[in-house]
Amino acid sequence: MNTFLITGFSGFVSKHFLDYLESHHPGAVVYGLDIQKPDFNYADFQQIECHFRLINLLDAEAVNQILVECRPDYILHLASYSSVAFSWEQPVTAFVNNLNIFLNLVDQIRLLKLKCKVLSVGSSEEYGKVDPKLLPLREDGRVNPISPYAVARVSQEQLSAVYSAGYGLDIVMTRSFNHIGPGQLDKFVIPSFVKKILEATSSGEKHIDVGNVTLVRDFVDVRDVVSAYYQLLMHGRKGEIYNICSGNGITLKDMLLLIMKQIGCELEIRTIDSLVRPNDNEVIIGSYDKIHQELNWKPSFTIEDSLRDIIQFWKTKLATS
Amino acid sequence: MNTFLITGFSGFVSKHFLDYLESHHPGAVVYGLDIQKPDFNYADFQQIECHFRLINLLDAEAVNQILVECRPDYILHLASYSSVAFSWEQPVTAFVNNLNIFLNLVDQIRLLKLKCKVLSVGSSEEYGKVDPKLLPLREDGRVNPISPYAVARVSQEQLSAVYSAGYGLDIVMTRSFNHIGPGQLDKFVIPSFVKKILEATSSGEKHIDVGNVTLVRDFVDVRDVVSAYYQLLMHGRKGEIYNICSGNGITLKDMLLLIMKQIGCELEIRTIDSLVRPNDNEVIIGSYDKIHQELNWKPSFTIEDSLRDIIQFWKTKLATS
Repeated sequence: MNTFLITGFSGFVSKHFLDYLESHHPGAVVYGLDIQKPDFNYADFQQIECHFRLINLLDAEAVNQILVECRPDYILHLASYSSVAFSWEQPVTAFVNNLNIFLNLVDQIRLLKLKCKVLSVGSSEEYGKVDPKLLPLREDGRVNPISPYAVARVSQEQLSAVYSAGYGLDIVMTRSFNHIGPGQLDKFVIPSFVKKILEATSSGEKHIDVGNVTLVRDFVDVRDVVSAYYQLLMHGRKGEIYNICSGNGITLKDMLLLIMKQIGCELEIRTIDSLVRPNDNEVIIGSYDKIHQELNWKPSFTIEDSLRDIIQFWKTKLATS
Repeated sequence: MNTFLITGFSGFVSKHFLDYLESHHPGAVVYGLDIQKPDFNYADFQQIECHFRLINLLDAEAVNQILVECRPDYILHLASYSSVAFSWEQPVTAFVNNLNIFLNLVDQIRLLKLKCKVLSVGSSEEYGKVDPKLLPLREDGRVNPISPYAVARVSQEQLSAVYSAGYGLDIVMTRSFNHIGPGQLDKFVIPSFVKKILEATSSGEKHIDVGNVTLVRDFVDVRDVVSAYYQLLMHGRKGEIYNICSGNGITLKDMLLLIMKQIGCELEIRTIDSLVRPNDNEVIIGSYDKIHQELNWKPSFTIEDSLRDIIQFWKTKLATS
């Protein structure tokens, strides 16, 4: 039980998952799939053996071939168009591609009768607009997706349940809340804040332009996320959904203030209408009771820990770019 | 406000909708789209003007062209792979095609900024396995799809809500319960029963083979369904979901007995495992309170009315085939 297949291998979550395997699962053999090459050197790991295949998961035949070749014990399905903003701009592409790559994967597993455990990664965006009385959000709560991206994630989760109950596949599902951590691209909110603030301080600007910063989000460090993914692949129950979150809500404005405090600057925060997303969820806070009770997982990084490492990452990146 | 676009034009619901327009909306201009030609003569209507276009709704460019050409006031989106059984056999085809044709339609409306009202037809299958205490099913109840077909229908409904709230499209959604009526294909349960019983009586067989006939379903006559669709196109509220149902549940076994009574025969009912679908919903009964309160719609055909006309249809069809 040592072979892992990771889709979305070149992304930032995958890199942290590999770090986790290096520390916790020596001897693991990893096959990484992505449509673009990773920017990290996957051959440098000492305790695990990584292989990379450049493939398009929309190509069912290619998915079939890699499954036959590597016969994974565990599949971590990270590949997705994970930007809500992009899904508003290109709803058909975002929706169809997200679903098609997932379906290609699970349907080939079905057709090959492959024995493996799949982690289907979903999102807190599935909950959508919720009654504040229902916070913190629990897995048995109702989903109410309000963006094309969120609908795709709900569909993936419901298809996971159908493939699990109807066809017997061993699929575990997550609703992962907002990840943060070093290495995340600046199309996501927190690294975009950090980068903007560092750039403003270095250029002498006195303000930064942002979207709606009254939104409340539950941020969880990517290193805690990947430990949860590992635990779920090992011990998660088939057909079950697990929140992965910190259990705490914080406004984007407070995140900005914490970042400025750590960097040591004070900038004016200006809300720009064009940066405000349509129809956004006001408050997202999760409960991690279920995964804590079943697998004893809980987050270990504080917001300050995460921000310290993110700021260090961007200082290095901006200095060397 | 006279131009109707109907997708899935060659199907049995469309034919009944045209009959309804002929009686209730003289002067209507109808553009019918389907991937196969209708087997009825759409040029025979006197009060309405029908045009037919053979197009594949998976072709976004073709969808764009027909929308530009006919600029519909109302769109009745009937096209789908509507068989639950087929969706278990070909889950990827059933899911992807259902969603892709819907997305091609609404996304072209978005891009063209077309002012029109769309009826997105969903299914009672969306409710899935439900707690009997929650019967009859109401629109504010939770959905729990348990087949690939049902997941596709839920996704279509959620995308309708996103296109309505997020992009401003005027979309009304239904959850339509099991339709019955003359003209329905025998891949559906009631016409398959009628056809089997008629064939058995004519060949002298003493039994019929069926699947799980303990299932309870809410059957609504297609002629009531199309009057609801018309009312919803005229007066349904944007972004709202409406059940279309009879409000009554009946077991498939009781339907068999009613059919045999009307035909005047008594056959042994044999349950064959291979005809039992995996993971099926036990009981589906809906409430039509919402559409009744808002639009004064209620069903007018009894089960006996429907069965009489279905039996007559199949007697004629079998006699002439």
